[in-house]
Amino acid sequence: MKCKVCSEHAVIDVRRHNAGFCQSHFIDHIKAQVVKTIKEFKMFEPEDRLLIAVSGGKDSLAIWDILLDLGYDATGFYLDLGIGGYSTRSKEASVRFADERGAKLIVRSLQQEHGFTVPELSRLTGRVPCSGCGLNKRYEFNRAALEEGFQVLVTGHNLDDEVATLFGNVLHWQTEQLGRQAPMLEERVFGEGGDAKTVLVRKVKPLVRVAERESAAYAVLKGIDYIVEECPMVEGNTQHRYKEAMTMLEEASPGTKAQLYFGFLKKASHRFKEEEADAPVVPCTSCGAPTLQWDDGKLPICSFCKTKTLAERNKLEGKTGAPQGRRRRRR
Amino acid sequence: MKCKVCSEHAVIDVRRHNAGFCQSHFIDHIKAQVVKTIKEFKMFEPEDRLLIAVSGGKDSLAIWDILLDLGYDATGFYLDLGIGGYSTRSKEASVRFADERGAKLIVRSLQQEHGFTVPELSRLTGRVPCSGCGLNKRYEFNRAALEEGFQVLVTGHNLDDEVATLFGNVLHWQTEQLGRQAPMLEERVFGEGGDAKTVLVRKVKPLVRVAERESAAYAVLKGIDYIVEECPMVEGNTQHRYKEAMTMLEEASPGTKAQLYFGFLKKASHRFKEEEADAPVVPCTSCGAPTLQWDDGKLPICSFCKTKTLAERNKLEGKTGAPQGRRRRRR
Repeated sequence: MKCKVCSEHAVIDVRRHNAGFCQSHFIDHIKAQVVKTIKEFKMFEPEDRLLIAVSGGKDSLAIWDILLDLGYDATGFYLDLGIGGYSTRSKEASVRFADERGAKLIVRSLQQEHGFTVPELSRLTGRVPCSGCGLNKRYEFNRAALEEGFQVLVTGHNLDDEVATLFGNVLHWQTEQLGRQAPMLEERVFGEGGDAKTVLVRKVKPLVRVAERESAAYAVLKGIDYIVEECPMVEGNTQHRYKEAMTMLEEASPGTKAQLYFGFLKKASHRFKEEEADAPVVPCTSCGAPTLQWDDGKLPICSFCKTKTLAERNKLEGKTGAPQGRRRRRR
Repeated sequence: MKCKVCSEHAVIDVRRHNAGFCQSHFIDHIKAQVVKTIKEFKMFEPEDRLLIAVSGGKDSLAIWDILLDLGYDATGFYLDLGIGGYSTRSKEASVRFADERGAKLIVRSLQQEHGFTVPELSRLTGRVPCSGCGLNKRYEFNRAALEEGFQVLVTGHNLDDEVATLFGNVLHWQTEQLGRQAPMLEERVFGEGGDAKTVLVRKVKPLVRVAERESAAYAVLKGIDYIVEECPMVEGNTQHRYKEAMTMLEEASPGTKAQLYFGFLKKASHRFKEEEADAPVVPCTSCGAPTLQWDDGKLPICSFCKTKTLAERNKLEGKTGAPQGRRRRRR
């Protein structure tokens, strides 16, 4: 197989584009896909300060690398989740990349910020680890962006990630989630005029046109020393199963994943848009983050604060969490 | 494992219902699922004359058997598609079942009605066999129901069939098809008042709560001598691949298929309803069947008549069909 651009020996075959690429033209191709995505979804402008959520894995380091190469003001943000040696090694990979590229990296730790790690939180609250971890990351990424003055939060979700999430939402017809699934979520603001205050920064996923296999190839070909091991807590994760099913279909018919995802954005996502919760969005009375004001006479408290309070109370009382928050098997 | 009802030895385990059944209670269970479906979707009343599209396979003979047991006025309709020995054997199974049950069976043949078989039509028009076959069956089933005075056309589509179709429509976001996918499609009528004329009879699928494996088990346990072989023309069919992917997910998480299908009906199908073609439905100027009047100055001719005319012309001229109608590989 030859490179589509220069006819030299191809190092990778991208079947859904029916094209092979040599090393340098593959790198160009991936960058072009990212540029196209940023433009298509009006993700950000050259003057925006970008905060990149970095895990030390292939996707987040690849998108950080690309944005730096493209000349964006891109700062990394690493959140230490306290998942034993996995967290140690993923932090090392992030720090090493920042050093090599001379890029700025902000490091925070859940333990230092809030007094617990992801495994502890799971044990204390009974939440499945992935659910507690997601809650913490969303909260901490947004808080860091606001506190450090960034306009845009960038994550390294690739095509396979988004397809697996979409597939899961479709399998259970999670209509609210379907209404919110997009490569760009605009910032949310409280108040108007001079009183306006950003409470959720804009979130973007510029890697949605790049498959998992392609971001791994990009990282390898660019010599990025990323952490290959996966988080030890995701074993048996349903997301993995959805990826497996979609990969089987993709192999039989290249382009299936992109068809599902971009077809959804074009022809179906608007049909789920009205699914906003009835409750108005108000500041959490504990931390000020946006949350929903339910009509139950209670003070509005965000999920993060509720979970944190439960963890702290159970820790004081020497209890572990009942598994009521554990995801039930769907029937 | 024991029967959920009588605690005797179970002959089958229905994992998504978390229940085992002995032979007689499994048969009751399947009938109860059909009764529930007929009622839930208001499919038909005891006085309606039902025409059952019969292929000689497990699903169509099972639903015919159940409807007869339930006391409905259920006549079988077998359409001979002319697919060699497969058609011969499937007709034999249908005739044998009708004889054993003392039920009425109407038999027609594509060759006799129109002068071609499914393989010939495919060769003459360049259409993939499954596509030409589906067109012929829809047309002939409806025509037979109208000519023989039936109010309702019953097909044996099971849960797996409907899930695979839904999954395919979602993968490609075929929004028009999604708007039409339902276990019951009401009749369509031309004209008003005394001039009203039914042109599409009501179509129902009372087996949608029964999985493929369960309808096979029902047929075996009831001693129905159905044809096990599949149509030789469906090899490599995408529908099979969708079934395979969904079965993988079902095995890991029983109930996934039912969740996808019934969740769609409850939470999503109405979102696709407005997708009617702009063109008005009018009678085909050749055969009178409903078709679309496009704004192109041409006389409205239905797909069946167009395909038949093309086949007849190519036959006269000794040509075979160009593969322009062949399904292109989606990218």
